[in-house]
Formats: sequence, C-alpha cells, structure tokens
Amino acid sequence: MNKRTIYLDNAATTKMSRTAIDAMTPYFDTVYGNPSSLHSAGQAAAEALADARERVARCIGAAPGEITFTSGGSEADNQAILSAARNGEKKGKRHIVSTAIEHHAVLHTLQKLEKEGFSVTLLGVGENGVVRPEQVKEAIREDTCLVTVMYANNEIGTIQPIAEIGAVCRAAGVPFHTDAVQAAGHLPVDAAAQNIDMLSVSAHKFHGPKGIGFLYAKKGIRLWNVIEGGAQERGKRAGTENIPAVMGMAAALEEACGRLEENARKMTALRGKLIAGLSAIPHSVLNGDAVDRLPGNVNFCFEGIEGESLLLLLDDRGICASSGSACTSGSLDPSHVLLAIGRPHEIAHGSLRLSLSEENTEEEIDCTIRAVAEVVEYLRGMSPVWRDLVSGKKEFITK
Amino acid sequence: MNKRTIYLDNAATTKMSRTAIDAMTPYFDTVYGNPSSLHSAGQAAAEALADARERVARCIGAAPGEITFTSGGSEADNQAILSAARNGEKKGKRHIVSTAIEHHAVLHTLQKLEKEGFSVTLLGVGENGVVRPEQVKEAIREDTCLVTVMYANNEIGTIQPIAEIGAVCRAAGVPFHTDAVQAAGHLPVDAAAQNIDMLSVSAHKFHGPKGIGFLYAKKGIRLWNVIEGGAQERGKRAGTENIPAVMGMAAALEEACGRLEENARKMTALRGKLIAGLSAIPHSVLNGDAVDRLPGNVNFCFEGIEGESLLLLLDDRGICASSGSACTSGSLDPSHVLLAIGRPHEIAHGSLRLSLSEENTEEEIDCTIRAVAEVVEYLRGMSPVWRDLVSGKKEFITK
Repeated sequence: MNKRTIYLDNAATTKMSRTAIDAMTPYFDTVYGNPSSLHSAGQAAAEALADARERVARCIGAAPGEITFTSGGSEADNQAILSAARNGEKKGKRHIVSTAIEHHAVLHTLQKLEKEGFSVTLLGVGENGVVRPEQVKEAIREDTCLVTVMYANNEIGTIQPIAEIGAVCRAAGVPFHTDAVQAAGHLPVDAAAQNIDMLSVSAHKFHGPKGIGFLYAKKGIRLWNVIEGGAQERGKRAGTENIPAVMGMAAALEEACGRLEENARKMTALRGKLIAGLSAIPHSVLNGDAVDRLPGNVNFCFEGIEGESLLLLLDDRGICASSGSACTSGSLDPSHVLLAIGRPHEIAHGSLRLSLSEENTEEEIDCTIRAVAEVVEYLRGMSPVWRDLVSGKKEFITK
Repeated sequence: MNKRTIYLDNAATTKMSRTAIDAMTPYFDTVYGNPSSLHSAGQAAAEALADARERVARCIGAAPGEITFTSGGSEADNQAILSAARNGEKKGKRHIVSTAIEHHAVLHTLQKLEKEGFSVTLLGVGENGVVRPEQVKEAIREDTCLVTVMYANNEIGTIQPIAEIGAVCRAAGVPFHTDAVQAAGHLPVDAAAQNIDMLSVSAHKFHGPKGIGFLYAKKGIRLWNVIEGGAQERGKRAGTENIPAVMGMAAALEEACGRLEENARKMTALRGKLIAGLSAIPHSVLNGDAVDRLPGNVNFCFEGIEGESLLLLLDDRGICASSGSACTSGSLDPSHVLLAIGRPHEIAHGSLRLSLSEENTEEEIDCTIRAVAEVVEYLRGMSPVWRDLVSGKKEFITK
C-alpha cells in the first residue's frame, strides 16, 4: 500500500500494531521451544503461554482456565456451537436459537447441525439490526441447548443487548454464546457481568496477528474438540501452540482495551462526521442503528448503483472500502444482513461499508466524503436504473 | 535460551530461519489487507497467497489447486481423514487402514470415527518400526475408504516405504493419505511420483512459523470442512487467511527443499557419530531403523533409568532433549510407538530422543555424548532397578 492509501476496511482486517509485532518477535528464533517439552526452552515457552492466557482472560473478565486458544474467530465459533450441540444432545436437547444476521462461521455451523437433525430458530431483527431480549425469551424451548447471538455485527455495526440476552438465557438455564469478533478490543467485554457462557475472539480485528483467536468458555462447560490430536489446551485443541501469535494477541488486546474509551471517542467523532457527510448524498440510507453501533462502523446503501463499481472507483482514489463482509466478497448475492434488516435487493446491491481505526484522520474522512459523493454521482450518471428512477419509470425506495 | 544451549529437540519444533522471518515481516503492517477484499490492499494479499500456494505446491510435486492452507499439521491430518471418511460412507465404505505408530492427530481422529461406527485396522510394525506394503495390501477390504500411513515417525524416525504403499493403494483404488509432518523439508516428497492422494505438512518442523501448515489433496478428492464459515480456500477452510504465516512457510519450505541433500548429508554424519557414541553406553538400544530413518533422528532406550530424570539432568547441562513426542510429554504412559516396536514397559520408560537440525555442530554432538553417558551412569548409580539388574535379581533385557 502506498502512503496515500486511506484504509477504511478495519472490519475485514487491521494493520498490526508495533506493540503486537514487538511482542511476537522474540518467539520466532529466541524463545522458540515447544511448550509441551520438559526442557528449559520448552518451559520458557510454556511460561509465555500461561502469561498470555492470564492477560487475555483479564481483558474479558474471565479466569485463565476458561480460555482456549484457537486459530481464529471462525474456529472458536465452530467449537463453541458444536460443543453446546454435543452437550445438548446428551440430554436430548437439539434446538438452537440464533439470529439471521450472524457471521457465516455461525450460520454455516448451524446448517451443518440442521443436517444432523438439530432444529434452529433464526430470529429476525428490526430495521436497525437489533435483536430484542424478549424475542430470545420467546424462542427458547424446553429442548434449547444454545443461544448464540453476535455481540456486534460485522457489516452494519449494530451492537446487541448482550447482557440482557445473557440474563434471559441464564434465567432459562440455556448456555449463551456470543461471537465477539468485531467487539473485542473495541467495546467493553465482561463475561461474568454480561452473563456470557461462551465468547469468540479473533486477534487480527484489533491490530493483533492473523491466525490466532480464542474461545472463552465459562468453567463447567465441556468443550468438544474441533481438532483432535495432542493434549494441548487441556486436551481441547490439538496442535503445537502458536506462541508468537498468542503473545502478539495478548499485547494487542491489552493495548486495545487500555485505550478503549479514548479510541472509541476518537472513532465515534470521525464516524459522526462521515455519516453526516454521506447522508447528504441524495437517495442514500444508513444501515444499522444510529446510536448502538461499533465506533468504527459506517454502512450506507446508495440507490441506483452497484457496490462493486463503487469499491473499484474508490480504490482508484486510494480508498480501501468494502461492500459488506470480506468473507463473502467473492459472492454476487446481496448481503444476508442487509436483506434481514429489510433492504430490498435493488438497494442492498449498492452498499458500502467503511470501517475506521483510531489511526484514521479527519482529513482522510473529508477526502472520503468528497470521493464517495463524486463517485456515486459519476456512477449514477451511467446507470440505466438511475435514469429510470429519475424519469419516474421506477419509484425511489430511499429518500 | 542462553548461548550454551544445545538444542536437540527439532522434531518437537524448530527455530525459525532468518529467511522465513524476513518473508513474514512485510505482511504484518505493510501488505496487511484481507485477501477477500476487492481493493488493492486486499488484492496485494491475494497475490501473495497465490504465490505462496504455487511455491509450496512446486516443493511437493503438486498443483496449486491441490493445496489447502490449514492452521498446522494436526488440522491437516484431521481434515484428510474426516474427508476420506465422509466420502467413503457415501459409498457404504467405513473401513480405514492405518498403523499403530501414527501421531495422535491421526489416531485420535480414527478413534472418533470408530465411535461413529467406522472400523479401523491398525497395522503392527517390525522392531525397526517399518510397515511392509504387503501388510497394507492384505488389510485392504472391499469397504476400505482410506489408508493413512505416516511418512516418517516423529519418535523413532523410521521412514516408511511410502511410494510402494501408495502403489498398493492405487492398484486397489483406495485413497492414500500420509502424515508428512516430520518428512516435509527433510526428505524428498513428490506426491505424483509417490502415489500420494493426501499429505499433511506443518511449517514449524522445518524452520517455518508455528500455526500454519497445509493439506495436499489430489485433484478430484473432495474435502470436507473441519472449520465452517467464510468461503476462503475454495470454501474448504474458513477463516481469514494467515498471509504472514503462509509466506513464512513458503520461504522456509523452499529453503529446506533447496538444501535438502546438503542438510541431510550433514545431519546424517552427525547422527552417525551420535548413535555410535551412545551405543557405547552399556545396556542401551537404538530405537527405529538404522538406515531408513530421518537424517536428524536419534532415539535410544537406556535400561534401568527413567527418561524424565534423564531429560531434566541433561537440561541442567544445557541440552534440550525429549523422551518422545512433545505432544504427549505431560503423560506418564510409555510411548505407544516404543511399545509397538516391542520394547517392554521397563525400558520404554527410559527413552531419549535427540533430534538434530543442520545447525548443530560436531562439538555439540561430542558434548552431548559425554553428558548422556555421565548422566545415565549417575542415574543408574541411584536406581534400585539397576541394582537389581546388576545383582542378578532381575534379568537384563538389553545387551
């Protein structure tokens, strides 16, 4: 990336912080032992592992023994859901409650379980993308073995009332998992206070390394292996521990949590400016809740254009943006999240996600607002759909 | 680790090479995009990913489309075996042939399948640890859906006749998987020429990063996800691609394969010296084949002592060694591999694995021979078992 790049795709992945890189480096070729080895080189690695476990646990209000390191958020989501399913079916419980706007790591795992005979209730969301705790309460059945609701949405940034949903689950005696991949390091997380039984985290969303994450599982919840083999992670996740990545994650999470309020304040201000600027573009609509949203998330639909062309023209101007989830950007289908909040296909195709980091500047935001306005106007000028809208042949959906 | 450490646990994990570290570094905070993103930052990452895939494929005689990146060797083993099982059961085939000396990533996955109703034949091995191709041929049944035999053993270093076993499988029309975690980067691998259908690799065994590996699966073999979610890796392995680690692995594998013969020659000479030196210790026995063994592997049993005490006293002298597989070193059970080659419990407990890298020196080997001889003598001097052996109360098993 050249110097003039404006990176606004931090929900897809982030630049590693210097702190995180420096925390990894010694473990590549200095303290490189295998923590399972009895000798001092192995024990030095084992001590680092224990230290990292304590530190990440502290960041989310958990105990070290409740942390299982995984290769990332997707693996953690898979393991949480499959574990709850295996524990549930032992008691004859094969029903799971979730939402229509979860990440595919959750939705596809639920589909796998449906093929095994589990039944899944996917709750709808309001236009703001929020799930109400009463919806969860009503959906819970005698045979419900898991409620899984994401902490904050990766596309539209909506923050769910996690503590309240957790309270509903606890009262009903149903384990509650939350995919906190977008939330950790950006929003306060306190597993105990928020009634969370299981929680998934991915390091590369908060300036940590890729290929590492963790699953928090409250003491007493039995985990089932996704990966079988050696006895690492108390026998619950096989494979030589990735110590450099674990150390990088711990450093990045501590850094992010230490500056949480300061970063949120800064990003919320930039977000406000960006939303105000883009709202001035006619026939545009903000997706997600105006208030209960990730500090760094901005998501708009622009009527009469294709999101992909928008992205490519913004890229020409050095602006890195996304149309939705990076994980499915190869797909031509409109986002399942935008459809779930009621956006019709026609405008769901014209979506733009801009996700900030605390490193972005006001100048970058000004530049982005100008660029988006110009590119949208340019694309509309060439769009037959836009012509039909303007001529009255088709009706506008947005104001 | 201080300067005087003699690291002889390279089968557990290796020090990353400078080449591999340098190959990773730019991807932490310069080319850090998500390869699924359409913008140029994402596309730069996608190009790196494609480049790495081509390079690792070339190292093992495969096509890029046959490589799926995983979080390591254990995940690759799990995915290979589970995929063959799922493909097999669709045709009513639920029998798998393997060996008694496989890594736990294989054995525990097979046990999981046995609980599902699969039947597993574990072939025994000779005293040298070798599986004969005829054994495989005899074990294959009408309903066999997979043969999985490791390329080289992680404890005793025995190299299996992989090409011949592959030929037997191909003739019988049964998919053949090999766990090549100890072999890749150390022994020549040519998937096509060796009749291999699936092959697992882990980067940290050849001076690459931890937390990354790959599964080769011959074109036409359907893989089933171990981790569900986004459409990464042609939809077969979800989770944001770990580009820094992938680049580090590609660089490390190319480096290792480029120096394969030179490194093997050097390590084989050091190994010969070490084996000769340790053989001079009375009542010791070499485990594994004298000729068909990994260039860097030395494994001995010393009668009358405990392996753990041996390790700790060697560690005091700065020598990092292992009693067997690092993945189970927390366990008090004797190695399943040593039992499989017929070592009685009494001497299997007194095992020592020394695994070399090309960076070890003759001086280190001399120092190690002296240290092992002295420590074995010291421990025998305190051992009641040894007293019984010397006094004739018990009979020696070894010469």
